[in-house]
Amino acid sequence: MALHKARASVGLDVDAAPDLQAALLNAANLNYDFVVTNLVHPRYRQEFIEGKAKHRSCPFTRADLILSSQDWSSIVVGKLSNYINVDSICPSTRENYEQQLLQELAYASHLGIPAILLPLKGPKQTNLARTIYSKLTGSQSTEARYSVWMQVPMKSPKAISNCYRDTGNGENHEDEEEKAWENETWHWWNYFRQVADFNKKIGIALEISEDLPSHAAISRWLGEPIKAFLVPTYLFLTNKKGYPVLSKPHQQLVKNLFRIKAQGIITGSLRHTSMKHYQEYMEFLFKQSISHDPLKKFGQGYEDYLQYPLQPLMDNLESNTYEIFEKDPVKYREYQNAIRRALQDKSKEEKYDGKTLVVTVVGAGRGPLVRASLNAAAEAEVDIKVYAVEKNPNAVITLQLQEEEIWGDKVTVVSCDMREWNPTELTDILVSELLGSFGDNELSPECLDGAQRFLKPDGISIPCDYTSFLAPIHSPKLYNEVRSCREVDKPPHTPFEMPFVVQLHNKMDLASAQPLFKFEHPNLSTNIDNSRYKILQFQVESDATLHGLAGYFECTLYKDVMLSINPATHSEGMFSWFPILFPIKIPIQVHSGDVIEIHFWRKISRTHVWYEWCVASPSIVAVHNPNGRSYSIGL
Amino acid sequence: MALHKARASVGLDVDAAPDLQAALLNAANLNYDFVVTNLVHPRYRQEFIEGKAKHRSCPFTRADLILSSQDWSSIVVGKLSNYINVDSICPSTRENYEQQLLQELAYASHLGIPAILLPLKGPKQTNLARTIYSKLTGSQSTEARYSVWMQVPMKSPKAISNCYRDTGNGENHEDEEEKAWENETWHWWNYFRQVADFNKKIGIALEISEDLPSHAAISRWLGEPIKAFLVPTYLFLTNKKGYPVLSKPHQQLVKNLFRIKAQGIITGSLRHTSMKHYQEYMEFLFKQSISHDPLKKFGQGYEDYLQYPLQPLMDNLESNTYEIFEKDPVKYREYQNAIRRALQDKSKEEKYDGKTLVVTVVGAGRGPLVRASLNAAAEAEVDIKVYAVEKNPNAVITLQLQEEEIWGDKVTVVSCDMREWNPTELTDILVSELLGSFGDNELSPECLDGAQRFLKPDGISIPCDYTSFLAPIHSPKLYNEVRSCREVDKPPHTPFEMPFVVQLHNKMDLASAQPLFKFEHPNLSTNIDNSRYKILQFQVESDATLHGLAGYFECTLYKDVMLSINPATHSEGMFSWFPILFPIKIPIQVHSGDVIEIHFWRKISRTHVWYEWCVASPSIVAVHNPNGRSYSIGL
Repeated sequence: MALHKARASVGLDVDAAPDLQAALLNAANLNYDFVVTNLVHPRYRQEFIEGKAKHRSCPFTRADLILSSQDWSSIVVGKLSNYINVDSICPSTRENYEQQLLQELAYASHLGIPAILLPLKGPKQTNLARTIYSKLTGSQSTEARYSVWMQVPMKSPKAISNCYRDTGNGENHEDEEEKAWENETWHWWNYFRQVADFNKKIGIALEISEDLPSHAAISRWLGEPIKAFLVPTYLFLTNKKGYPVLSKPHQQLVKNLFRIKAQGIITGSLRHTSMKHYQEYMEFLFKQSISHDPLKKFGQGYEDYLQYPLQPLMDNLESNTYEIFEKDPVKYREYQNAIRRALQDKSKEEKYDGKTLVVTVVGAGRGPLVRASLNAAAEAEVDIKVYAVEKNPNAVITLQLQEEEIWGDKVTVVSCDMREWNPTELTDILVSELLGSFGDNELSPECLDGAQRFLKPDGISIPCDYTSFLAPIHSPKLYNEVRSCREVDKPPHTPFEMPFVVQLHNKMDLASAQPLFKFEHPNLSTNIDNSRYKILQFQVESDATLHGLAGYFECTLYKDVMLSINPATHSEGMFSWFPILFPIKIPIQVHSGDVIEIHFWRKISRTHVWYEWCVASPSIVAVHNPNGRSYSIGL
Repeated sequence: MALHKARASVGLDVDAAPDLQAALLNAANLNYDFVVTNLVHPRYRQEFIEGKAKHRSCPFTRADLILSSQDWSSIVVGKLSNYINVDSICPSTRENYEQQLLQELAYASHLGIPAILLPLKGPKQTNLARTIYSKLTGSQSTEARYSVWMQVPMKSPKAISNCYRDTGNGENHEDEEEKAWENETWHWWNYFRQVADFNKKIGIALEISEDLPSHAAISRWLGEPIKAFLVPTYLFLTNKKGYPVLSKPHQQLVKNLFRIKAQGIITGSLRHTSMKHYQEYMEFLFKQSISHDPLKKFGQGYEDYLQYPLQPLMDNLESNTYEIFEKDPVKYREYQNAIRRALQDKSKEEKYDGKTLVVTVVGAGRGPLVRASLNAAAEAEVDIKVYAVEKNPNAVITLQLQEEEIWGDKVTVVSCDMREWNPTELTDILVSELLGSFGDNELSPECLDGAQRFLKPDGISIPCDYTSFLAPIHSPKLYNEVRSCREVDKPPHTPFEMPFVVQLHNKMDLASAQPLFKFEHPNLSTNIDNSRYKILQFQVESDATLHGLAGYFECTLYKDVMLSINPATHSEGMFSWFPILFPIKIPIQVHSGDVIEIHFWRKISRTHVWYEWCVASPSIVAVHNPNGRSYSIGL
């Protein structure tokens, strides 16, 4: 069950195989990675339904000596008896099932298997959730080590039987029922995992249905912690050559499931020439699931991995950080376009008399914007003089080397904080790349307000404006990632009150991103105030959970030359920025039609800038990060 | 502003008194404890409404040298300007008001006043809540030290104007509107404090209205952290002697407010012969508010004070703990009644031949039940022999002393754990007092199951059964008390996953208590199982917040001789048990008509017993105390 490898992980459900050793060998020969098998033989069921159970040593079919502990712990997923019902309304039945469940769980621990599979068969399985949850918490020594895969059908049995019903009684009504059924099993899961406090060892084994639900319902599943998915053999069609294949929509779904690192499980009896072909087909879909989008490729391995945002004003970047970002194929091309257009416009002005234009690059780093400026000047056929202002002494060395060896007189390197530099001449164009994932979050507004004093009255700032964007998201995965950032010596709210830069992946968007704070440069107002406060409202389309806010930005470099990481307008192929995530302390249940209201503040003190946020609707979550107590950006 | 004293704390609102020193002296002469006064003179308002504010040094009327810092910090409550509206939809107005608010707050900090008073004038004051909250959090050094009293009207201005309207258009409609208005200002407050994360420095200064709302609405206010209440002089009637008095319902309200330790504030102009009389009248109501109920008297000073439940099986009680509980005027009288009735019944049995009956007291402590047994036998004119079994060696000394000096042959003291003692003869009546506030929570079931082996087949256990009870409650006060029990070296959930014994006081009941787990003795089933699981549903009558579950018990000593701390059936005058509180990790908003569904478990391992609980409706809060990770009772 290796999770990170370049091929699919596919298991075979061998049910209650009479000879487990042989079944394992067979599965390995067929190229499967693991098997799924019952821990208890189904014939022992009777005992448990008829009153108090008696003999407890016999029902386990799998004496632990059959396999080596290495095998048990790496290639066997244990199925729990599927008739167990610890939420029965009959107390004695419930107690008997509870005993059996505890016994099977103890046996799974004893065997050391990596995961157990058990079915979630209805709504409000409170006692089941409690029992599983209690096994996964407690002290290090007593805590169960297996993962729990809850087998959840994509459609409830009711919805499936409905497919074969006469549809005479009105389309609309049918649609609504359909929707309710699409929601139904997700609600089973959503209830279960809430009772179990979103425990990260509990994931989903999604049972893929013959009829697939709507796009929205599938998106929601893809926002869940799906660890495995079950593909019954009856879902496979037969192609012209006699091999098993899936329908197009099923193919798409499987590829998306592979992308969120779920493992496949083939269940059911053979309906084609060999079980081997199902595995081969899954492998084929896995290969197709690998993305060739440069942005996705760049983000590979970083999916849902939380990073603390850079504080370039406080910290100096390292050389390889510069190197990575300089490789962006889109960003500097667009900067060059913007500078060229600005130079062209400047050269068309009446007062322009063919003399040299001054371009100042603030935060020049290792020089990519200096190069972009020089290239742009060549394209525009305009003479320019470039000042490259950089505060990081390590980067200045690289700049000076290029000044001496390549650029010569055209470029003057200034080793200075842009807020302190006193230029000898004013500049026509001020170029900067100070934006963070949330636009202003690396204090571009404050820096450029400080630097604009060396801009001529009619000078141009590139970028000339930028706007942050926010969207509410559902992501138990990210909620758990944030939760696990807790440090013992800090209050429990700390990780929930800071933004993280993260390649958002295993999540669902609850609504499209909306613009939040806009900043323009140069800022000509007499009383510059970069603090902000805005209220955003998002209409929710489906039942889900609000776990956080995804942050993006859009930026106008010059006129219609834009950079964007807002999904709706994302600059194609640009990978310099991952989104930013603002967590929410308490997951909020939202329903289709609800309005999520977010209040967001940008606050400023003499020494720091920080954000605060709160949820005002549909329920209230207190202000996050009051007074910047958990996170702030140093000026 | 001394909070704990035997007289009322009453302040006088002197508004923007031209000479504060004189106003203070005058208030002191009139016997008032503190004054409430504006920090900024109202005439400076204009400046703030017309665009950006300019001169900021002048508007503060109260140069800090007027009073000594001792006076500022003890007898002045500062009113903030009541026209400040930082939630204005107009950004520039909002920003100006925000500046003014910050300035007034800074001035309040500078003066070192103990509390500020500011009006909550409408719904959804998000930005106001954020601003206040951010002043109250942060590092020890920057945190504001004043308390914040939010002035909340009992009825919204709309409701008040409605009183004078023609009531022609249907009673029902009026009723509903009335109810909405009763709710309205509470919702203002409920929103505000949620945004401010239930910060315990933020309390209410309740503006008492002329027409009082319903009983339910008043109860809800009394469940809130009311720090002060405002009594406008126009509320006072004039009695025959010309003195100011309040109507009966207003009197009752004021007394209840004094009981939850709120301080009175007289506002408005003089309408009687002297301001002194209002203070005297408040003093009079305060004296009337002091309860003479023994239970209340016993609980005085313990209101809402959390105590860890006793673990008498693990720990030995101290002598003064025994002493306190032996003073209960009701408990031992009822035990004596029960034992007498049981002895009488035993002596009427056919096989009884006048011989001595055996009574065994398990957990005899310092002997109160031994005395009750001997008294009961005397009343019933039956000969008995008493075995007094006690595991605490310190208590055994006291027992042995009484055996020697008073009881003689009639009593045999056994220094032994009841679970280990092997008696030489079986007993007719087994008497115990092992109940905790939640009935079984001190492991009475396990102890008595162990002790029942020395009971004759037809023997009687006193008590013969007991049942725990649960009721959902609203109490921001208790929520904050639990929250502040957090210990740095334990997870943040720990205090929310353990019960506390507490004299519940500043709270509202959301529904009547319902029976939970019942235990009967002797327990004659072949397979004794003291684990339990039950689902309770409570219908909620008003909009409120669920903060926890109050726990009680009812107990049958023998036949109709009962002990109860369930409020509906509480044994009059019995003070041996305070209720128990099971907290809820996340406060849940509930609405009139909602059903609160609670799942509750009693779980048992080889060494421990513990409870787990979760909320399943109207929203879900994960299982508390899974596997007894935060709290369990040692066997």
